[in-house]
Formats: sequence, structure tokens, C-alpha cells
Amino acid sequence: MATTDKGTFTVKVPQGTRDWSGKDIIIRDKIISSMVEVFKRHGAVTIDTPIFELLNPTISGQDASPICKLADQGGELAALRYSLRDSLTRWLALRGVQSAKIYQVGKEYRRVADGLSRNIAEERMKCHFSVVGASDGLLAEAEMLRVAMEVLDGLKLGAYSIKINHSLILRGLLEVCQVPERLWQGLAKAVNNISKTSWDEVYLDMTSNLELGEAIADKLGGYISKTGGRHLLYDLLLDEGLTKNVSFSKGINEMKNFFDFLEIFGVMPKIAFDLSLTRPDFLDMGLMYEVVTLPLSIKSAGTTIDSMEIASGGGYYKWSGYLYKTTFPITGIEFELEDIFKIIQARVPADQVRETEVDAYVIAVGGDFLMERMRVCRRLWDAGIKVEFLYKEVSEPTCQFAVVLNEEGTKQGKVKIKEVSNLHRRGLDVDIDSVGLVLAEMIKESKEGASSKDGAKTEEERDGDGNFRERVNRVRAHGGTVEMEGVNVEMDFAKIKVKDAEIEFEGAKFDIKKVKIEIRGSKEK
Amino acid sequence: MATTDKGTFTVKVPQGTRDWSGKDIIIRDKIISSMVEVFKRHGAVTIDTPIFELLNPTISGQDASPICKLADQGGELAALRYSLRDSLTRWLALRGVQSAKIYQVGKEYRRVADGLSRNIAEERMKCHFSVVGASDGLLAEAEMLRVAMEVLDGLKLGAYSIKINHSLILRGLLEVCQVPERLWQGLAKAVNNISKTSWDEVYLDMTSNLELGEAIADKLGGYISKTGGRHLLYDLLLDEGLTKNVSFSKGINEMKNFFDFLEIFGVMPKIAFDLSLTRPDFLDMGLMYEVVTLPLSIKSAGTTIDSMEIASGGGYYKWSGYLYKTTFPITGIEFELEDIFKIIQARVPADQVRETEVDAYVIAVGGDFLMERMRVCRRLWDAGIKVEFLYKEVSEPTCQFAVVLNEEGTKQGKVKIKEVSNLHRRGLDVDIDSVGLVLAEMIKESKEGASSKDGAKTEEERDGDGNFRERVNRVRAHGGTVEMEGVNVEMDFAKIKVKDAEIEFEGAKFDIKKVKIEIRGSKEK
Repeated sequence: MATTDKGTFTVKVPQGTRDWSGKDIIIRDKIISSMVEVFKRHGAVTIDTPIFELLNPTISGQDASPICKLADQGGELAALRYSLRDSLTRWLALRGVQSAKIYQVGKEYRRVADGLSRNIAEERMKCHFSVVGASDGLLAEAEMLRVAMEVLDGLKLGAYSIKINHSLILRGLLEVCQVPERLWQGLAKAVNNISKTSWDEVYLDMTSNLELGEAIADKLGGYISKTGGRHLLYDLLLDEGLTKNVSFSKGINEMKNFFDFLEIFGVMPKIAFDLSLTRPDFLDMGLMYEVVTLPLSIKSAGTTIDSMEIASGGGYYKWSGYLYKTTFPITGIEFELEDIFKIIQARVPADQVRETEVDAYVIAVGGDFLMERMRVCRRLWDAGIKVEFLYKEVSEPTCQFAVVLNEEGTKQGKVKIKEVSNLHRRGLDVDIDSVGLVLAEMIKESKEGASSKDGAKTEEERDGDGNFRERVNRVRAHGGTVEMEGVNVEMDFAKIKVKDAEIEFEGAKFDIKKVKIEIRGSKEK
Repeated sequence: MATTDKGTFTVKVPQGTRDWSGKDIIIRDKIISSMVEVFKRHGAVTIDTPIFELLNPTISGQDASPICKLADQGGELAALRYSLRDSLTRWLALRGVQSAKIYQVGKEYRRVADGLSRNIAEERMKCHFSVVGASDGLLAEAEMLRVAMEVLDGLKLGAYSIKINHSLILRGLLEVCQVPERLWQGLAKAVNNISKTSWDEVYLDMTSNLELGEAIADKLGGYISKTGGRHLLYDLLLDEGLTKNVSFSKGINEMKNFFDFLEIFGVMPKIAFDLSLTRPDFLDMGLMYEVVTLPLSIKSAGTTIDSMEIASGGGYYKWSGYLYKTTFPITGIEFELEDIFKIIQARVPADQVRETEVDAYVIAVGGDFLMERMRVCRRLWDAGIKVEFLYKEVSEPTCQFAVVLNEEGTKQGKVKIKEVSNLHRRGLDVDIDSVGLVLAEMIKESKEGASSKDGAKTEEERDGDGNFRERVNRVRAHGGTVEMEGVNVEMDFAKIKVKDAEIEFEGAKFDIKKVKIEIRGSKEK
């Protein structure tokens, strides 16, 4: 343990923080770049704010809040970034920006009790995406959930569900059930825990701690236990007690329209309309959502990953944070990077993650040949190849190619390129001067081969492929037409030899924008 | 100005920090990814350490040092990351790692006087690359300078020079000139300023402030004013007064060997052997280096960017920082990201930096067509196209393509794809269902066209292309053979119609691993 006595300091990271390195950071950064690709596809830009923000004394209670303050060293009073949302709010306010799509990936810091009655800083890595400014109805929210879907599908996190609810619907339920307004916030907190605890516990919380009458609790419970798809919407519309309520009625109409949007965007299959979904600050919000992964069994490890809430957010009429407040409408979603990391880490076998991206090692056999190894390396670096020339020891090679030097070869200015998995084979003899070009071509070929088989595609892309293949197979069986687009072949005085066949083109130029391949089907086959 | 009175808080970033957004963050992140590409090419891995580290009370004077401490809130005492080097040292010590190639990009925080007698935090964005562990002679240092060269060339920063010197050579000079050892550190500081000030000022500093005898100062000055390439090395070897000194002799021999390494790695043209290059902690170091850009005139702006020290480092026998110390050998280099940013920002015209990566806008003409626009967007997102469908207002479109909807088209399920630069042209009519595939192909084509002309390639890559094309052209003129590898065509009962020609394949399967295309040359043509 760290102490303040001189000489007894133990090297460690501060409590509540962690280093990222090795395979972990490779996986983490792949998650981030996959998410960022989606945000960019939706026209978002990124910002990077300082790791600390000024304390804002116009917001009450800031001193008592769980922020991680910097020491007063004669400068300004500041605290580590409490949330990416806070920093975004400050960023927007400073520039008067009122319309934007913005994402930021970064760390947030809060103080939490560590169980030893101390308040330690806790670092959490997050990814925040938001659409700033008013939108048509709940259009921004619909795109937000489409973004969430693309992110989740892109990450191949397994099955998940996007829970949604509308604060006006919740407000309507509270009004219809005659819940006293002073209990709303406490109730929202209690109800929000349903998915984490159980209805019985929430019921107990409502009736004992919040002193809600049992009849009211029962009535409310009847509503908030409902979850479903579009049919739930229609069920609720049949409930006259509810539809007479102004808030409920407004909320359910917005929701109806929202379902149409989600349908068009292809998000509906992932949606669960869940009346228990709420937030402590639901009164400042419109639509609320939460992305939950379903329990996942990892066959290779024989373990199960529990259901996790990996993202949440909503449309805000006004945002309030610990350091900044604002009033313009913002729709945001926050991804829990560290939880997503845990799922991916469990799903991806460790031996499939390469720590370095080295393409080739340069190795000498039967001698040191330092200068020659250096010469070869230079050629390879010149050709943009990722290469390691071992300083002193030969570690376990994890890359695909080895460039091998030996005495005879170096005398003739030649090296051998071998596949690391087949080091006993003869290998390819290459002049030192052309080793860069040759190996670059081999690496490119091998990568193209790998990427054509690999699993980097999302489920939907694979479905797309499947559909295409299905169509081809159907056509094969029954006859028909498969269309392809965008083929471009250019040949000038070419002659191609293929085994026995010989095809000659004289100055041919194919510029085929739409190819139609007719496949003669064979039902019997 | 920020005050602590309630109600008068001005929204701003903390002094000494900045937001990164808009074109700045695009440029900054391109710089980072270009550097990271080089580090990966050399087999490096990355780490990400917490933004604060524990205070280490076993290092004396830590309380008084210019670190940015966190407030004591009942947890551990910590300070914001003072330097990436410090954090790396802690990371290595924690894991007992003694051999690695590691880079980290991140922010460092120090306290500096702000001119108003306050100590404000100052944030600097840095990029640190190091080789940990012993190497053969100065091999790690040679690779380090090769890395620096690849980084600088990759960034196209203009002309630059890599200054090098050896601490043993400097020590030898100090001994030969009989400079009292107690003055060495102060002298190193003074001499280190030569390139920033002038010899006269340094001379004054040495003789008045450090009370160095004038004769000694003159003699030392005669040496440290020398700079050059390999010839300086041979000049110094002829100086018997120097070569008799043990330190100097050891240093100059290592340097001689080092020059051979640099020659092989192709770095020599950038090297300036500069006897005035030093560091305050040179006694803990071996080789020292510093990358300096030469003054650069920006023709378009009519301005000049002064020479800047954009990277520096060296080989350390032991590292010492404000928070951590270590004793194993490390060779490191630190790039000043913000200075590099300034140069690139000045060199790249603002209109060449695109803030978003959107490929296409979806626009409606003569109506709102919200649902139809959404439907089109969904197709485009499905095809992985980066698209923006304008919520309410049409901003200045900066992307290449527009998908235009109008009343007549939407009735027939059709949209038009237009080039934004030619919106008056008719455009291409496409079915809504296939707009994703068609546009994806058009974007791909346009990007390939752009990248074959663009300047994103290094000079050397362009040479490579040129060679292939040159070979093709040579063959075209004189006849001959161009070889290609890895073509794979699979066709099964296919019939391809191309304008007049009709080619039929019956169950053909081409699996062409090595194609040989014979081109009949035509000298006259």
C-alpha cells in the first residue's frame, strides 16, 4: 500500500484508474474506431476538451458534489472533467453553437466511496454522441437509435435490446395514478432500478421508503410492468383512463410518430417499448432510451456474461450537470466503453489479438550480419513494411513473414523470404535491393486473402451476402437473371492465356456499368 | 474574467488549456495517425496511462516542483501527468518490463507563471516514442533517428535538420578545457541556448553569471561553435589535445560507429553533428538529439514560419522525472505536437481541410418528403455511405454528391444522384432500392480517382508507382511482358454481353494465380 513515509512508496496506478496496454488497448481502440466510423457516417464531428474544467460557482452545491478538484495552487479553481456532457455544454456555450452533431471519446472522473470510508477518484472511459438543436418531431432521436443500432451491430456484441419510453407518458401515468408530485423524482429513481432488482423490492421501496399508498403503488405497478413493441402502444391507446390525460396523450402521439420513423430506419426489430424506463431527471427530458445486451454465453470459456446496460441517453429540453447548464435542446447517447470492452474481450479469443502490427522479422542465421540486417530493414521500411529486426534476442515471432540472412546469401546480395509458419521450407530468394517491393506485394496479397474470408462484416452485411448468394442459388436452380453493377475492365492489346483456352483481345476496352449475367438454371441439379 | 462571485461566472476554458475542434482537430488527428503509422512500422505498441499519477514521496522536492496536484479529498495524493516519460517509467516499473518499443500520445501538465504572479496549469499535447532496454552500440538511437526521419518526411513539414551530439564528447571537451565540474550543469544550460540566442549572450552568461575564466570560455567556445557532418568527426580526430582524453575518445568512437549505422539507414543527409547540443541532464545520457525545422516561407499567406525545435530526446542511462525514476537504459524521443500542428496548419490551406467526412447530402426539392428522405438515408447508411439528411436548413454543402428527391421522382420510387459541383446537370436517375449500391460504387470510383492523383503518398511510394507505370509504358512502346499476380475470376454458366461482342463461358472457372499479359508494343504510336 502506498504510504507517505519516504522510502516505502509502492509503485502503482492511483486507485480508481487503470493503464491500458497490450491486447486490452488494441481491443479498446478497435471498439472506438468502429464507433467513430458510425458517427462519421452520420455526419458527426469530434471535439477534444481539456481534462479539467473551471468550477462554476453559479451552480449551487458544486463544492459538495462528487467532482475531483484540482489543488488550489494560486491559479483558477478547477475540477477534472465530470462528464463529457458537461464539457460539451461548456464548449457549445462558449461558441454559441446551437446546431451540430458531435462526438467525443474520453475519460470522466468522479469521486466515489471506496468502502474504507475514503472518497477516491474514479475514472471511466466513455463515448458520447449528441445532436444539438431542434429537430422535426423526434427525428434526431430516431437517428440516434439508428446510430446505436449501427454501433452495436458493427461491434458484434451479440443480442441486445433498445428500451425506449417517453417522459410525457410516464408523467401521464403518475398523474392518472394520482402519485403526489413531491414523490415523482424519488419514484423515478426507484422504478429505474426494476431491471436491476425486482418488482418486489421496488414495491417495498415505493410503499415503505416513499410512503406511497398501496392502492396507488398497485395501480402504477400494473402500468410500469408493461413492455413490448408497437402493440403495447395500441393497447395503451385503448385505455380511456389514460388517453384523457393531456401529458399521456401528447406523449403517446409523439411515440406513434416515432415508431414510424424507427420503422423507416429499420430499427424497430431492436426496440422494446418499456414503461418502467425512466431517469431521475425525466422531467427535463422527452424521449428516454437505454441499450441493454442480453445474457451471452461464451462457449469457448464456458462462461456467461450477464445482461448489461451499455448505453443510455435521451432528448433533453435542458441539460444540467455539475459544472454547466444549458437550455437548448440536445439529444445524446453515452456508450459505456469499459462495459463494451468487457464483452468484446470475453468474446474474442486472446490468441486472435495481435499486439503489434509487424509484418515481418529480419533474422540472421549462422552469424550476426548486423549491417546486412540493417540494410535489409532500410529497404523494407522504405517500402512501408512494418518490420522488426531483433536487437539481441529472438522472441516468439507472431508475424507472418521472415526475411532470413545467411552467409552465402549475403555474399551474393541475396536474402530469403519465408513464411514463419513454414520456416523449414526453402523460401523465396530475392535480391536485397528488391526485397522491399517483393515482400510488400506478398503482404498485400496475403492481407487481401485474409480480409476476403474474415469475420469483420456485420450481421447485416453477411445477411446481404447471404441474400445475394441465395438469389444466385435460386437462379441457378430455376434460371433467371442476377445483376451486378460497376464492373470496369480495361485492356489494351492484351492476350490472356488460361490453361488450354486462349482468348485474344485487340485493343478491347470494357467499361461495364451494369452487367447482366444470365445463368442457365438446372432444376434437376 | 472568471470570479468566484455567484452570477458573474464567465464561460471559458481553464487558462493554459484549449479545446480542439473543427479543422484543428482534423489536422491534429491526421498528424497523430501519420506518426503512429511510422511507430507501428517499427514494431511499437501503445499504452494509455491515467491522466494523474500518485505523488512519490521518495523523490525529494516533489512538493515544490511545478506539478499540478489534485486536491486532497480524502483519497490518495496525486498530480496530473507531468510527462509521458514519467508515466512510462511508472508503467515499466510496475510490470518489470525491461525491453519494449512503446509510444504514447497524450497531454502533459505543468505549472507555469502566467505573468500575473500566478501559477497556472499548462497543458501540452505530446507524442513520445521510446525503445526500452540495451541495444548493440547505438543501434536503438539509429533506429530512433530513422523513425524521426520517417515521421518528418511523412508529415511533409518542409526542410529540417536532426542535430546530434554525444555526452561523452561534451564531457571530454569540458575536461580538456578544464571547466570546473561544479559549473558543468549550469554551463550545459547556457550552451543549450546558443541556437535560441547568440554566442555573445552565452559567452556573457558563462563568464559573468557562471564566473568561468575568459580563457577557458574562449577555448570551449572554439569547440562548441563547430557543427557539420562526418567531416567534423575526422577534424576532431586530428585534434591530439582531444583524442588523449578518455571520455572524448570513447564518445568519438561510438559516434563513428553511429555514423555508419545512420548511413545504412539512409538518415545521414538530415544529420548535423553539433557540438553545442546538450541537455541539463547530459551526464545521465549517451547520445543526444534534437529535430529542428528550417525557416519556411508560406507563399500563399506571404508569411514565414521561424525555425522550431519540434522533437528532442536521447539515450538515457537512467531517467529521472518529477514523479518517477528508473535505472534501465531507455532511448526516447518526444515530438512537440502543438508546434508541428502550427506548421502544418500554416502550410495547408483551410479550404483543403474538410470538417466532416460526409459523402452525400439528401435534399428534397419542391416539398419536404421527410419520410422519403429518411427511406433514402436508410438505404445509404445500409451501404455504409456517410450521409447527412438536413434536418431543417440547407447549409453550404461541402460534400461531393447530392441525392435529390422531387415529387415526380418519389411517386415513381426514383431519386436523382447529382454531383454537388454540377447541380444544374440532369443527374443519374436511380431506383430508391438501389441508390445505396449505385452511390457506394460512384463514391468508391471517385475516391480511387482522387487517391491516384493525390499527394497523400510519400515521395517514395510515388516512385514505386512510377516504376510500374514506366515499365508498362516501356513495354507498350517496345513490346514485352508485364506480370501480375493473384487474379481470381469465377464464372459458372455465365454469359456476358458487351455491346456488340458476345462471349460465352460454359462452366468456366478461372483461378489465375500468375497472369502474364503480353502487350504488343508499337514503336511508332
